[in-house]
Amino acid sequence: MQHLQKLISDSIQNSQFPNQPTNLYDPIRYFLSLGGKRIRPALTLVAAEMFDIGEITDALPAAKSIEYFHNFSLVHDDVMDKAPLRRGKATVHEKWDLNVAILSGDGLLVKAYDELANSNPLYISDLLKTFNRVAMQVCEGQQLDMDYEHTDKISMDQYIEMIRLKTSVLLGGALQMGAILAEANLSDQKLIYEFGEYIGIAFQLQDDVLDAYGNPETFGKQIGGDILINKKTYLLVKLMEIIKEEDLPRLQNLLNATIQDNPDKLHDMLSLYQSYNIKEYADKLKDAYTQRAFERLSAINIPNHKKETLITLSTQLLIREQ
Amino acid sequence: MQHLQKLISDSIQNSQFPNQPTNLYDPIRYFLSLGGKRIRPALTLVAAEMFDIGEITDALPAAKSIEYFHNFSLVHDDVMDKAPLRRGKATVHEKWDLNVAILSGDGLLVKAYDELANSNPLYISDLLKTFNRVAMQVCEGQQLDMDYEHTDKISMDQYIEMIRLKTSVLLGGALQMGAILAEANLSDQKLIYEFGEYIGIAFQLQDDVLDAYGNPETFGKQIGGDILINKKTYLLVKLMEIIKEEDLPRLQNLLNATIQDNPDKLHDMLSLYQSYNIKEYADKLKDAYTQRAFERLSAINIPNHKKETLITLSTQLLIREQ
Repeated sequence: MQHLQKLISDSIQNSQFPNQPTNLYDPIRYFLSLGGKRIRPALTLVAAEMFDIGEITDALPAAKSIEYFHNFSLVHDDVMDKAPLRRGKATVHEKWDLNVAILSGDGLLVKAYDELANSNPLYISDLLKTFNRVAMQVCEGQQLDMDYEHTDKISMDQYIEMIRLKTSVLLGGALQMGAILAEANLSDQKLIYEFGEYIGIAFQLQDDVLDAYGNPETFGKQIGGDILINKKTYLLVKLMEIIKEEDLPRLQNLLNATIQDNPDKLHDMLSLYQSYNIKEYADKLKDAYTQRAFERLSAINIPNHKKETLITLSTQLLIREQ
Repeated sequence: MQHLQKLISDSIQNSQFPNQPTNLYDPIRYFLSLGGKRIRPALTLVAAEMFDIGEITDALPAAKSIEYFHNFSLVHDDVMDKAPLRRGKATVHEKWDLNVAILSGDGLLVKAYDELANSNPLYISDLLKTFNRVAMQVCEGQQLDMDYEHTDKISMDQYIEMIRLKTSVLLGGALQMGAILAEANLSDQKLIYEFGEYIGIAFQLQDDVLDAYGNPETFGKQIGGDILINKKTYLLVKLMEIIKEEDLPRLQNLLNATIQDNPDKLHDMLSLYQSYNIKEYADKLKDAYTQRAFERLSAINIPNHKKETLITLSTQLLIREQ
């Protein structure tokens, strides 16, 4: 697994971009250099290996295209969210400006397709269709996420659908692209895609839980960050779904209060979550999606030992930082 | 020619986009409905016909992808230029907001690739490479255009290179994609691409001239708009290149003055252009690029009558509104 991640990191690091115009290519180089775990492109390689691709490097262009796409979406999301930091460093619109962030994001998206075009022409049509389907869904998910910020209450179905589109389909697509390159049949392509989608939802639910309950020393972000900005995570959506009428004013007061108004906002919200067992609901749903994912993986008709890398990777990611 | 434009307009009009999320798809529908002459996708069809494609509708996906790409670039350019109007209607960021404009532009770019993927798989690899090369160059051109806004003086070479990237390569690419689909050989692909690039530069030079000298009744935009905002058109770049030192203060005063400071700004700048024969230089360079373009077209080894549609279209566009 680590050799696959290194293959990707090295390849991205060795990618040559033109020097001019500097305001287009410097931000692209900068953002790609911020790193990240390169999990999505690794999934492409893992799936390709799993389905017996001859040369793993044949899947490298598709893997890189997934990583470039992911970075494109982060650059533009950071603009839309007005985020000052990404991986502890200034975001592109902060370090340069809005226009540079828009255009270098566009450039990254084109570069994603440019990498894809380096794949074996035999598979490009199928790769492109999978990539486009997923890319459009990620845009839909981002739009829903923004829409829901201004919506008082959303249903759990709406929430799950939003995170499915915004974060999970890309994991599914990354895996499917590896499967396409290794000539997996359509049924196995569908199964590995669904594995990615379900495991992606499980990851996101875990992220929502960790934001409130993670270990401050290993989580990497401020604990309770989502709570302080009233972000509609699984926890809040679930609470709003099951809260009793008598507790509604308490919740409303907490949502109306900034940390300045109420220094105990984080603690009080956690108490409310506690009294409704919200964390247990989240853990349970995460487990259900994990199980659904592994059922899909089991249904893939290849020897079990070939599935090991993917199982190990997923399991590691599902117990991180807890 | 008109039947080709109708083919495209009808096909775009009949394109089905999902209804949800409305803030993603409504702006895409809105912007595509603003129309335009659909010249770029028509070029794809004209080239495909010229090189004897069997069924012209086989080139429709590639043609539409060119038009979607063009619209994507307009939506994002309008944001970067803070433009309130496009084709007399509110731009996307004005009618909705910044975030919607960024994301629906992204969506249009993905849709461009999505249309491309509907082409015959045999040609997709070549189409994708041509498309990506051109798309990246358009981004480069847009960045240079923005960079040059904050540059006191640019050379004529820089100016021509900027308009080549920002506007001309897309015409070349549109034609080349039609040629690819009709199985033109590489040498003819290169020639038709270069025809498009050169004729595109000629169009842009004409646009620069028309902004100052066009017929107000047919030009469609405000005459002198570029002059009033000191836009670095061919006319201004050329003037700055050849102006005598004794006239420099006069130019500098004009550039420093808004229309409020100097209601005669337009008239005075036109006088300055006149005294240096700037329009004649522009017309001459336009003619030189037009000639270069037609030389490339002549070199294509097919019967002359097959080139007629492209010649007629280019000639019409090169004498419009004068």
